[in-house]
Amino acid sequence: MPELRQNIVTRDWVIIATERARRPDAFAVKRHDATPAPRLDPTCPFCPGHEGDTAAEHGRVDGPEGWRIRVIANKFPALVREGLPMRKLNGIYRSMNAVGYHEVVIENRRHDLHLHEAPVDDLAEVLGVYRRRYQELRSDPRIEAVVIFRNHGAGAGTSQPHPHSQIVATPIVPSQVRNRLEIAVRYFDETGECVFCRTARDERSVADRVICTNRNFVAFIPYAALSPFHLWVFPLRHMSSFDASTDEELADLAEILRTLLGKLYTGLNDPDYNLLIRSLPVRMVQSDSFHWYISIVPRISVAAGFEMGSGIFINPAIPEESARFLRDVIPEH
Amino acid sequence: MPELRQNIVTRDWVIIATERARRPDAFAVKRHDATPAPRLDPTCPFCPGHEGDTAAEHGRVDGPEGWRIRVIANKFPALVREGLPMRKLNGIYRSMNAVGYHEVVIENRRHDLHLHEAPVDDLAEVLGVYRRRYQELRSDPRIEAVVIFRNHGAGAGTSQPHPHSQIVATPIVPSQVRNRLEIAVRYFDETGECVFCRTARDERSVADRVICTNRNFVAFIPYAALSPFHLWVFPLRHMSSFDASTDEELADLAEILRTLLGKLYTGLNDPDYNLLIRSLPVRMVQSDSFHWYISIVPRISVAAGFEMGSGIFINPAIPEESARFLRDVIPEH
Repeated sequence: MPELRQNIVTRDWVIIATERARRPDAFAVKRHDATPAPRLDPTCPFCPGHEGDTAAEHGRVDGPEGWRIRVIANKFPALVREGLPMRKLNGIYRSMNAVGYHEVVIENRRHDLHLHEAPVDDLAEVLGVYRRRYQELRSDPRIEAVVIFRNHGAGAGTSQPHPHSQIVATPIVPSQVRNRLEIAVRYFDETGECVFCRTARDERSVADRVICTNRNFVAFIPYAALSPFHLWVFPLRHMSSFDASTDEELADLAEILRTLLGKLYTGLNDPDYNLLIRSLPVRMVQSDSFHWYISIVPRISVAAGFEMGSGIFINPAIPEESARFLRDVIPEH
Repeated sequence: MPELRQNIVTRDWVIIATERARRPDAFAVKRHDATPAPRLDPTCPFCPGHEGDTAAEHGRVDGPEGWRIRVIANKFPALVREGLPMRKLNGIYRSMNAVGYHEVVIENRRHDLHLHEAPVDDLAEVLGVYRRRYQELRSDPRIEAVVIFRNHGAGAGTSQPHPHSQIVATPIVPSQVRNRLEIAVRYFDETGECVFCRTARDERSVADRVICTNRNFVAFIPYAALSPFHLWVFPLRHMSSFDASTDEELADLAEILRTLLGKLYTGLNDPDYNLLIRSLPVRMVQSDSFHWYISIVPRISVAAGFEMGSGIFINPAIPEESARFLRDVIPEH
């Protein structure tokens, strides 16, 4: 019988659709393009040789060969740096100047080297760049939230195949952040405990949805995963903001992400995915109830009219089975 | 300069991304398959001749040729008819039997005749079937909400090209419905007015986002449209539940939908879309603050990591320009 499960962090309901369930390996992507990407693509704006064409540079890590990581302004920014976040009322409607930051992190000189293939130290270096930008952007008093994300593949909304991620700083607290914060505060009020700390502890003790774990992180499929192979990575230490992470924690995060992304790549044949870091609104420094974490959402199924009309998701993959499958995958790096 | 706009019905923010804006006709879909669908596909489970293979029939409209519309149970239902909606606690997690209804409305005998091409009376007949099923399903005391939707095209999540829609009755109030209801109640508390009635009046008087209107309905692009050519259709009379619509209203709804879908088909080259009816939770009969309406969401852009991480949408189409474009399109029926 299908089961409705409630997501403890969002209070959304998900239908675990046993009548439509497929075996975990049936979600592997079919890819037809056998030609591997080149090391360097002369037409790619993010490849070395195009440094002059890109918009303003806001950060860089250098190595013996030249730059290793670059942070640049997005050429077509959704939010712009100049201006004040003034609110306006037009009749019944509210609007605001879209002031903020929209940056691109070019993770690698190489056009073809994705995060799960790069050495783990390179990945830790990228995470360090995220942390530095997060700290710089939050110091702008106009900014309320910093959203870091990575779109992998055309189905996940990216138009550039060169390995990169994005950082957006917004002048409002986004609804996704506010809802989770409100739910977490209510949970803390009732129980005296952070819902994320509690979840991490329970998942590690039950273990049937855990994919992998290390000193500082646990990666698992949520009990009420919204879609097949939806993944959460929680830090074990209670902290509300991503930029509170220590170097040791970022090194461990790099290790667990590399494993997870490698398992997705090998087990599901390089699915498109979105990766996002959920962190506290930046005007708040620390909260007993909110805990930063990472969501990884492979774009394997399509949300359709029912999901849009109800906010209830239908998931044809059983979380415990998906987790067992991914645990057993040996990533090819 | 890009602009943040707040959706008055959901309180979500949208970035109207002027830096990335494209001309309205640039959103037209490129289609490569020139072969039109056949009138009858012998392999299609919804075409005449397969009546015996489909799951239980829950409604039918007959004509001289045989059935004209059929309502059948979904073969792989997300929710099942038998059982009680018992809630369970498993440690910290909440679950529930996924009890409810999941039905398919086969709108037409013909495999190739989509809603915008069928005679307007046929469309009104389909809406009448929705209303009848809505009334029957709400009479089951286990049901809290009835969601009616239509997925058009593979990018909108459908696997069957035969014209059909779906009706799902859920044993919980979905979060999308509850949020809108809460916001509408608060608006009413503050202003003494239904936010939907107010919006319909304002949109008709400003007129720059209106696509078309008739005696009983107005169709427009929302001020804070989440994505290109996102459309709303509001009834002009205040009513909370879809099934309160009169025959005259359904006839007018058929007319406006036929025009709108025809304009999308002609102007944007048959884009995939989701259409959904948002209606009051069925345990409530009428509310001063909530008003049923229809959303149509063409699947032209992909929601990516930023949207998932923030709940803020980036829309590269300017609502007023999209509306002007669609107003001028003469639908080919």
